[in-house]
Amino acid sequence: MSSTSRRDFVRMAAISVAGAPLIPSIAHRATPTTARQEKKLGFALVGLGSLSTNQIAPALQKTKHCRLAGIVTGTPAKAAKWKAQYGIPDKNIYNYETMSRMADNPDIDVVYVVTPNSLHARDTIKAAKAGKHVLCEKPMEVSAARCQEMIGAVKAANRQLAIGYRCRFEPHHLEMLRIAKEKEMGDVRLIESGFGFSIGDPTQWRLKQALAGGGPLMDVGIYSIQSAEMIAGQYPIAVSAMTTKTDPVKFKEVEESMTFELKFANGISASCTTTYKVNGFNRTTAYAERGTFGLTPAFNYDGIKGWRSDRKELAGAEVDQFATEMDDFADCIINNRPTSVPGEMGLRDVRTMMALYEAARMGRTVRIA
Amino acid sequence: MSSTSRRDFVRMAAISVAGAPLIPSIAHRATPTTARQEKKLGFALVGLGSLSTNQIAPALQKTKHCRLAGIVTGTPAKAAKWKAQYGIPDKNIYNYETMSRMADNPDIDVVYVVTPNSLHARDTIKAAKAGKHVLCEKPMEVSAARCQEMIGAVKAANRQLAIGYRCRFEPHHLEMLRIAKEKEMGDVRLIESGFGFSIGDPTQWRLKQALAGGGPLMDVGIYSIQSAEMIAGQYPIAVSAMTTKTDPVKFKEVEESMTFELKFANGISASCTTTYKVNGFNRTTAYAERGTFGLTPAFNYDGIKGWRSDRKELAGAEVDQFATEMDDFADCIINNRPTSVPGEMGLRDVRTMMALYEAARMGRTVRIA
Repeated sequence: MSSTSRRDFVRMAAISVAGAPLIPSIAHRATPTTARQEKKLGFALVGLGSLSTNQIAPALQKTKHCRLAGIVTGTPAKAAKWKAQYGIPDKNIYNYETMSRMADNPDIDVVYVVTPNSLHARDTIKAAKAGKHVLCEKPMEVSAARCQEMIGAVKAANRQLAIGYRCRFEPHHLEMLRIAKEKEMGDVRLIESGFGFSIGDPTQWRLKQALAGGGPLMDVGIYSIQSAEMIAGQYPIAVSAMTTKTDPVKFKEVEESMTFELKFANGISASCTTTYKVNGFNRTTAYAERGTFGLTPAFNYDGIKGWRSDRKELAGAEVDQFATEMDDFADCIINNRPTSVPGEMGLRDVRTMMALYEAARMGRTVRIA
Repeated sequence: MSSTSRRDFVRMAAISVAGAPLIPSIAHRATPTTARQEKKLGFALVGLGSLSTNQIAPALQKTKHCRLAGIVTGTPAKAAKWKAQYGIPDKNIYNYETMSRMADNPDIDVVYVVTPNSLHARDTIKAAKAGKHVLCEKPMEVSAARCQEMIGAVKAANRQLAIGYRCRFEPHHLEMLRIAKEKEMGDVRLIESGFGFSIGDPTQWRLKQALAGGGPLMDVGIYSIQSAEMIAGQYPIAVSAMTTKTDPVKFKEVEESMTFELKFANGISASCTTTYKVNGFNRTTAYAERGTFGLTPAFNYDGIKGWRSDRKELAGAEVDQFATEMDDFADCIINNRPTSVPGEMGLRDVRTMMALYEAARMGRTVRIA
């Protein structure tokens, strides 16, 4: 395979490992309203692209505390299709103009923002103003200022804001974190991580700076940043980066590949690679004093495999990462518990990515205060 | 294993893979002088540390065109031991003061410099002035100026100078080069490489800036630079780097770890890691348009393993890398053919490493003219 759509790529990798398709072959119905009495929170999906279609909507069917209650889409044909497939009532179907009317709709507790990166602030702020909790896909936005606006708007509405960092709830990643935190092989000293793929359709929004805010770093490099942060137990304080471009037509607006380094205050450093040019990057490795441990592949929707140099098992339950992420957020809301993936984390990562772009552009190490 | 001597580490790894020790259990005799008529060139080893003892002297016994003819050592006890073990005549045993008398010794054709890094120029220039060809261990020296002096001295003597880049003669590395050069999986876009180990004895010369000229970058990081250069088919034109230090006592003078990036004019970039802090880094991976291929481990004395994402074989003959390297140099001398690992290559890599140290120190990308 030389190039493919991003979601297809991650999904294909998952299917080939798990041996079973992720997309249910039968239509699912929205959970009946009575379920609300069982504390099932109503989710509205904003943006019905392939992630919503192939991952999030099916995952909602597997959750304990959530149900697909509504949708927001600018495409009437999609609205009709989703209405038919999931039995969504007309009153819970919105477009971007009517979305603010959600304020009067008690069926919807949480808005899950799945639009292109630079629309996240717009949709999050609308949802917050309508009094909804917001789960927003990563990257949080394309600038730190916009992230701060989002945090402010949700706070003003007295609601919760979480970022869709699915790996924060994935058992293999949590086991990596545990081994590092408990120093089971001694202190971790170095981390290597890479995530990338060969991107297909040259017209897609992911290749447009105004919508994506950047290239593979914003889209998949962020997984390496998150993984390094989980293992290091802190945010990086300095970064350096270099970008490369061999196809200036396709990658007219965003970087084609980036190699980058993260330095942490505790002496750990991470060496990372992200690309839209070639397949095969999908791993994270931690090098500790008495051994190494890692995940290969690390960032698929399922089929994640762990390994340890001491031949012990690095295993974890196979979960639906989106279902787990949504159930956790629902639990935070139901029990008034702060999320572990707050807007502040999303903001910090956007600042890290902006520092990486500055480092690449200026050719110098950039410190993050 | 938490820390160990460098040579022991590489050797242990090799033994564990190959299943047989590399050090011959019986004493070898120097090839008799009559062999010179069969075009066996006489090698004198300068510096009888573990590399000479455990690798180069045994490898000399396996060469076709070389023989161990003499030694240079500052330690009389070592001279006595080598004399007994290899039957080296007294007239071919030198110390660093008497070494220039080699000029009158036709038994010695080639001087192999195996002293600490910052003594390479001293010993190379002495050997050149004595009219000998010189094979010099990597890194060539600790500054570009010294490398240039070495090149000048050997050129003035009308002799050849080669750098001990053993992987340039290793079949798996040559197969990596071939796959890249013939674009068998399309253009290579990205390279990842790492080499490092947990260093033992805190008093060794490798941890002293004056003798080593740097830390793991100079010692083992150079293998990643060489591997990237082989795959990219050119030298890097820009570099960035970050160093980390968590043990400022042991690593008072040199870096503990470095993550670094190399950028090539053909659009390839390489992301590399080197360390004296943890074991486990020993690989090189090339990401091409239609697949990935790599070596894990990549840099051991033997037991190198290749892999390709298309499941085809990436194999190579198991050779003694030092024997192959020495036989190639002997062949260059016998047939008056230029070496493929000349002083100019060693100089370029020293310039790259100095640029990497500057990049880390200044926190900026450094271009190499």
